[in-house]
Amino acid sequence: MYNIGIDLGGTNIAGGIVDNTGKLVYKKSVPTLHERGAEAVIKDIIALCKSMAEESSVELSQIKSLGIGCPGTVNPPEGILVYATNLNFKNIHIGDMVGKELNLPVYIENDANCAALGESLFGAAKGSKNSVTVTLGTGVGGGIIIDGSIYSGSFFGAGELGHHIIRMGGELCGCGSRGCWEAYASATGLIRETVKGAEDNPESIINRYVNGNLDEITAKTAFDAAAEGDNTAKEIVNNYIEHLCVGFSNIVNLLQPEIIVIGGGISGQGDDLITAIENRVSETVLGGNLKTRYLTAKLGNDAGIIGAAMLGQ
Amino acid sequence: MYNIGIDLGGTNIAGGIVDNTGKLVYKKSVPTLHERGAEAVIKDIIALCKSMAEESSVELSQIKSLGIGCPGTVNPPEGILVYATNLNFKNIHIGDMVGKELNLPVYIENDANCAALGESLFGAAKGSKNSVTVTLGTGVGGGIIIDGSIYSGSFFGAGELGHHIIRMGGELCGCGSRGCWEAYASATGLIRETVKGAEDNPESIINRYVNGNLDEITAKTAFDAAAEGDNTAKEIVNNYIEHLCVGFSNIVNLLQPEIIVIGGGISGQGDDLITAIENRVSETVLGGNLKTRYLTAKLGNDAGIIGAAMLGQ
Repeated sequence: MYNIGIDLGGTNIAGGIVDNTGKLVYKKSVPTLHERGAEAVIKDIIALCKSMAEESSVELSQIKSLGIGCPGTVNPPEGILVYATNLNFKNIHIGDMVGKELNLPVYIENDANCAALGESLFGAAKGSKNSVTVTLGTGVGGGIIIDGSIYSGSFFGAGELGHHIIRMGGELCGCGSRGCWEAYASATGLIRETVKGAEDNPESIINRYVNGNLDEITAKTAFDAAAEGDNTAKEIVNNYIEHLCVGFSNIVNLLQPEIIVIGGGISGQGDDLITAIENRVSETVLGGNLKTRYLTAKLGNDAGIIGAAMLGQ
Repeated sequence: MYNIGIDLGGTNIAGGIVDNTGKLVYKKSVPTLHERGAEAVIKDIIALCKSMAEESSVELSQIKSLGIGCPGTVNPPEGILVYATNLNFKNIHIGDMVGKELNLPVYIENDANCAALGESLFGAAKGSKNSVTVTLGTGVGGGIIIDGSIYSGSFFGAGELGHHIIRMGGELCGCGSRGCWEAYASATGLIRETVKGAEDNPESIINRYVNGNLDEITAKTAFDAAAEGDNTAKEIVNNYIEHLCVGFSNIVNLLQPEIIVIGGGISGQGDDLITAIENRVSETVLGGNLKTRYLTAKLGNDAGIIGAAMLGQ
C-alpha cells in the first residue's frame, strides 16, 4: 500500500506518493498561487493527487490515505487549517473538502511537525523514540516527536521552538517579541549579524566576498570567511553558534530527546557545525548532558511530504 | 489496596500510605541525616515503611508497591539513584536494596517528577492529559506529564525547567550557567533583587519591614511591600513576574500543556500572581495562546509522597 503526502507551502504545493518504507515513489509539485483563495488551492491539491496516481504506476485504489502538511496553526482532529499567515487562509475545512472529492481518509498537520515525523520514521532520527527536528532557515521551525508520534500539546500548538526566548529584551523577532531563539539562530539572524560585522570592520574579507554590496550576504558568507581565517567572520560564527546552542541546551534541559535533527540551509555546514554544537551544549546543559545526539537532517525538502504521507499510519 | 510513597529529601524522609483515590491515610517522617551515608538512610526508609504499616490500620500485605522520589538524577528502570548533590549519594541501587527487604515492587523517580505526577492525578491538574508542574522555591523544580505519565526524556533527565536560559549572559545560577530561569524565578532570585532594591532605595518600606536587617528579607517581603504601595517593591515584583513569565511562555511555546501547576512558597501569592501571569504570558506566547491555564498547586508538600506512591500504578 501507499500514502500520499502533500506539503502545502507559500510558493509550491509539493506532493508525493510514498510507500510503507518511506520511499518517495513519485513526486510532483505545482505553484500555490494562494492569492486565488483557498478553494482554488484545494482544487489544485485534489488535481495534483489524481494526476500523480495517473502518471505514476500507482493506482488511486492502492492509496490508503492522504496527509497534508500546512503552514501555521492546524486542528488535526477536525481537519481544519485554522490560520496560515503566509497563505492568508483562515478556518479552512481542508480535510472534509479534499476527503470527499478523493474518497480517502485525509489527515492534516502542521508542516514542521510533518518534517519531524518524516525524519523520525525514515531520516536522521530513525529508530529513536524521542526526537526534536529543528529547521534553521529564514525562520526557525521545530517539531517534537515523543514515543514515535508527533507531540503537538493540548491545543495543537506545541513545538514553537523558534519563539522561545533566550535573551530577554534582545533582538526584535518577526513574531513581535524580543530575544526569541529565531531572532538569532535563523539565517535571517545570522545575515543581520554578518552585515553588522562587515559594516563595523571594513578590513574583513566579508566585504570583498560581496564586492561591497552587503545585500548579497547570505547565511553562508560568515562561515566561508571564517574558514579562510577572517577574524570578524570567526567572531560572528562563534557568536551565532553560542546563541544557537543556548536554544539546543534549553531543548535538552526540557525534553532531553535522544536525537536532535538539524535541517534547513545552515545545516549544510555539516560536521563542523555539529561538532561545535556538541562541544558548546555540553557546557550549558545541566550536568553536562552528552547523551542527546545532534545529527543533520537526511530527507531534505522531502521530509515534509514523507511525514505528511505517514500521518495516517 | 494501598501504595507507599517516600519523598527522600535533604532534611527529612517523608513517607505516606496512599489509597487508590490519592488519599494519604497515614503519614510519617524521620530526619534524613545523610552524612551517615546511603546504607543508613536506606535502612531508615525500610524501617519507616514497616513502622507506618504497624502504626496505621493498613497491613503490609495490603500494600501493593512502594515508590521513592529522590532528588537529583535517577535511573528508574534500574532502580538506581545515580547522583544527588544535596545528599552526596552516587550510584545507589536503592530499588534492589529496599525491595529485597520489604518484598515489594519498588519504583524510583526524580522527586520533582513525583510531585508533578501527584498534582496530575489528584491535584490541580487532575483530569488533564498534559501538564507541567513548576515549584518556585529555593530553586525552580519542574516535572512534565504527557498523556498522564511522567515524561523524563530519553535519559531520565528531562524537565529541568529551572535551568533553561531566558537571559543569556545574565545572573549567575547555582548550576554554573548564566541567565537560567531559576536565577530569576526562584525565591533566591527574588530575595537577591529585593535586597538590591532595598539597598538602592533607602526610602523603601522594605527597609522598615526588616528593621534595616536585609538578611531578614524573604520571598514574601517585596510582595507585601508592593501591596502597601511601595514603588521600589512594585518594581521588584513587576520585574520578577516578567522574568517568571518568560519561562512560562517558553514552556507553553514548546509544550503547550493544558495546565501549568505552580507550587512552592511563592505560589502562596495566590490568585493575584496567577492573574498577573496570565496577562503577561498572553503577550509573549506566539499567537497569544490563552488556552493553557495556570493553577496553584493543591497537594502542597504531600505532592511528592502521593506521586511517588502512584509510580507503580
